[in-house]
Amino acid sequence: MKIYKESLDAMLAIVRDYTQQTTDMEIERRVYDIIAEVRTNGDAALKAYSEKFDGVSIEEFKVPQEEIDAAYESLSDDLKAALLKAKTNITEFHSREIEQGFVDMDTPGIIRGQKVIPLARVGLYVPGGTAAYPSTIIMTALPAKIAGVKEIIMVTPPQKDGINPAVLGAAKLAGVDAVYQVGGAQGVAALAYGTETIPKVDKIVGPGNIYVATAKRQVFGQVDIDMIAGPSEIGVIADDSANPVHLAADLLSQAEHDPRARAIMVTTSESLANVVSDEVERQLKLLPRESIARPAIENNSYIAIMDSIEDMFTVMNEVAPEHLEIQLPDPMNYMSLVQNAGSVFLGAYASEPLGDYVGGTNHVLPTSGTARFSSPLGVYDFVKRTSFTQFTKERLEEVAKHITTLARTEGLEAHARAIEVRFEK
Amino acid sequence: MKIYKESLDAMLAIVRDYTQQTTDMEIERRVYDIIAEVRTNGDAALKAYSEKFDGVSIEEFKVPQEEIDAAYESLSDDLKAALLKAKTNITEFHSREIEQGFVDMDTPGIIRGQKVIPLARVGLYVPGGTAAYPSTIIMTALPAKIAGVKEIIMVTPPQKDGINPAVLGAAKLAGVDAVYQVGGAQGVAALAYGTETIPKVDKIVGPGNIYVATAKRQVFGQVDIDMIAGPSEIGVIADDSANPVHLAADLLSQAEHDPRARAIMVTTSESLANVVSDEVERQLKLLPRESIARPAIENNSYIAIMDSIEDMFTVMNEVAPEHLEIQLPDPMNYMSLVQNAGSVFLGAYASEPLGDYVGGTNHVLPTSGTARFSSPLGVYDFVKRTSFTQFTKERLEEVAKHITTLARTEGLEAHARAIEVRFEK
Repeated sequence: MKIYKESLDAMLAIVRDYTQQTTDMEIERRVYDIIAEVRTNGDAALKAYSEKFDGVSIEEFKVPQEEIDAAYESLSDDLKAALLKAKTNITEFHSREIEQGFVDMDTPGIIRGQKVIPLARVGLYVPGGTAAYPSTIIMTALPAKIAGVKEIIMVTPPQKDGINPAVLGAAKLAGVDAVYQVGGAQGVAALAYGTETIPKVDKIVGPGNIYVATAKRQVFGQVDIDMIAGPSEIGVIADDSANPVHLAADLLSQAEHDPRARAIMVTTSESLANVVSDEVERQLKLLPRESIARPAIENNSYIAIMDSIEDMFTVMNEVAPEHLEIQLPDPMNYMSLVQNAGSVFLGAYASEPLGDYVGGTNHVLPTSGTARFSSPLGVYDFVKRTSFTQFTKERLEEVAKHITTLARTEGLEAHARAIEVRFEK
Repeated sequence: MKIYKESLDAMLAIVRDYTQQTTDMEIERRVYDIIAEVRTNGDAALKAYSEKFDGVSIEEFKVPQEEIDAAYESLSDDLKAALLKAKTNITEFHSREIEQGFVDMDTPGIIRGQKVIPLARVGLYVPGGTAAYPSTIIMTALPAKIAGVKEIIMVTPPQKDGINPAVLGAAKLAGVDAVYQVGGAQGVAALAYGTETIPKVDKIVGPGNIYVATAKRQVFGQVDIDMIAGPSEIGVIADDSANPVHLAADLLSQAEHDPRARAIMVTTSESLANVVSDEVERQLKLLPRESIARPAIENNSYIAIMDSIEDMFTVMNEVAPEHLEIQLPDPMNYMSLVQNAGSVFLGAYASEPLGDYVGGTNHVLPTSGTARFSSPLGVYDFVKRTSFTQFTKERLEEVAKHITTLARTEGLEAHARAIEVRFEK
């Protein structure tokens, strides 16, 4: 792995260079055309795109319930047990995220508050092929269930040899109400606008390729979306107390996701940096996905040697990693230094894959530096708020002058009159 | 106003026809080019666009603090008092929106939780000219302040005769840290990517024209944004107990915002529908902004006569209005029927303009049907969450098998090894 030993400012500039994002206008336009076509021609457009992009001719988009039930039954006992454990732990953790509204009745004659209301219908996007992760289905569907969403539907690209049974089984376990076999930008468009067979949803969540991500961005506003998922990332903050074999294995666990994945370690120890770098190379050669992990390690990953604990956190907050491991003694003490990270793993035994599956926290996390402003997927993503206000005549009269002053300052005479008309004789 | 008396299904179809949204690919491309130019050339691009679009040659983007202080001092006592009252009430209400993280330590050996962290820097977009509303500045800046955001900056288009003092005064009152005179898509691009003089932010909030809205959508992902604001809307649910003069005035208060604004009333009373329709016409003729309000009323607004209270709410939930007035006896009883609305105004004296200024609730609200999935702007929009997990070796060992089973099902061998390496002799 590339090792940097730079000043703090120089290191921050290097971090920024690694995180530049770009948009491709050609993809934007192709996705725009696909969405327009689905809006106009509905199911017929979906059929045409499925033949063109997936090479599959679809008669029925909706996967029959019997196929879903059979898929679940076909799973091994070990896999069922693992999925059930994940479900239990995710449910436990996410139940703490349930939010309540409030009512403020402190002032006589005024009632004000906020009501928290679950979204009515949510759509999950699940990628096809090797990126079809059953764990992601439970990570996206369960928070929606816990929030009280009434209907959860799922789209996933059709496969020549049928949809992965683990995906269908996880959908059943997570309480998904219907599965439709349609993917890509056309699948996103169907969820956003609805077709003859697929109902439109209020929010679309889940990862996908660049076409899916672009489509999600384009339909944002028509429906809500979760964050646009980029390549996986792991950041590790470690000192000499950490085990380099563990560190290397953790760095590689994210590198194996994607050639564009990033594994970044920051340490105060030059010797640890060297040992981990060698250990990454040793373990990398033994990995079945070496061809994916190697470009991730060689092109996007690095170790930075810094002078102090504070500088390590400053650099890592600039990275704003999806996953952050703090492998320092008494790691909880450093939570106050974390400004930007999706999910933090504390100490020697909170290895990042724990959080991917059964730790209880969500694994749908902000990537590409978006932890600066966004959160792990949670129950709060599947509710919205409505505020409400009731004033008596007397209470309105007390503030009437302020309202009419502000309205007229803004040139909004009808606003002022709506108040005044209530006090005319 | 147009009056419909249709079956529930027919009325729902009519509502859907009114709420269709479109995107303009030509505007998308022009905005894309502007953003690319600002990313490449920074301040020089901003200067060129300000000359081209605003007809103003800018030397210094940053408005001097003395100019801001002087603007505040120049405001009338009435306006200062109104802004201060608004600030007090908004602060009171929004302080209830502060969220806490949590720590789950119920299982020995496991610590899991969530930390709520304020965004570091937020950018407000404030439109120029007649749409420069001081009230919107306090509605956007105060929740960010209450959330704990350290730095709030504002961009607003340059004006040939200087920026509106009410806008600068409100910025001072709301605690905005810096004001830059740059607007349009280029202003949004500057906030998203930063230039030599304007620092990049974590989130951009505030309304704007179609170029601003398109730019916000395009930079979403690089930064967070609030919802894309469409034309204003008011929905009114009323029966014979309501005062038609008040109702007409309230409908017009939103119609005067924009020729594309929508004012929609649903009632069980045919006679009320007729009287309100006539009263709207009578009051409309007396409005200074009649030329704006008339097309809004004639093209986008209507009254629907329905058979029952339930049907009124079903239709209004399909509209999903930005503002909803419930002018029925005991209006609070009907909050349970509200699925989709930005802010609800209950009873005869909660006229909608109360919420625009001093009621305490936020006036930045979801429009164009987006109340289906989004919320009033609030303190929750200016924080993000980070989850954290700590497991002892024993606790990890208990779930190790589940993790490796799931990892290998998903073809992620390095994930499995990151766990197993911790238990090797």
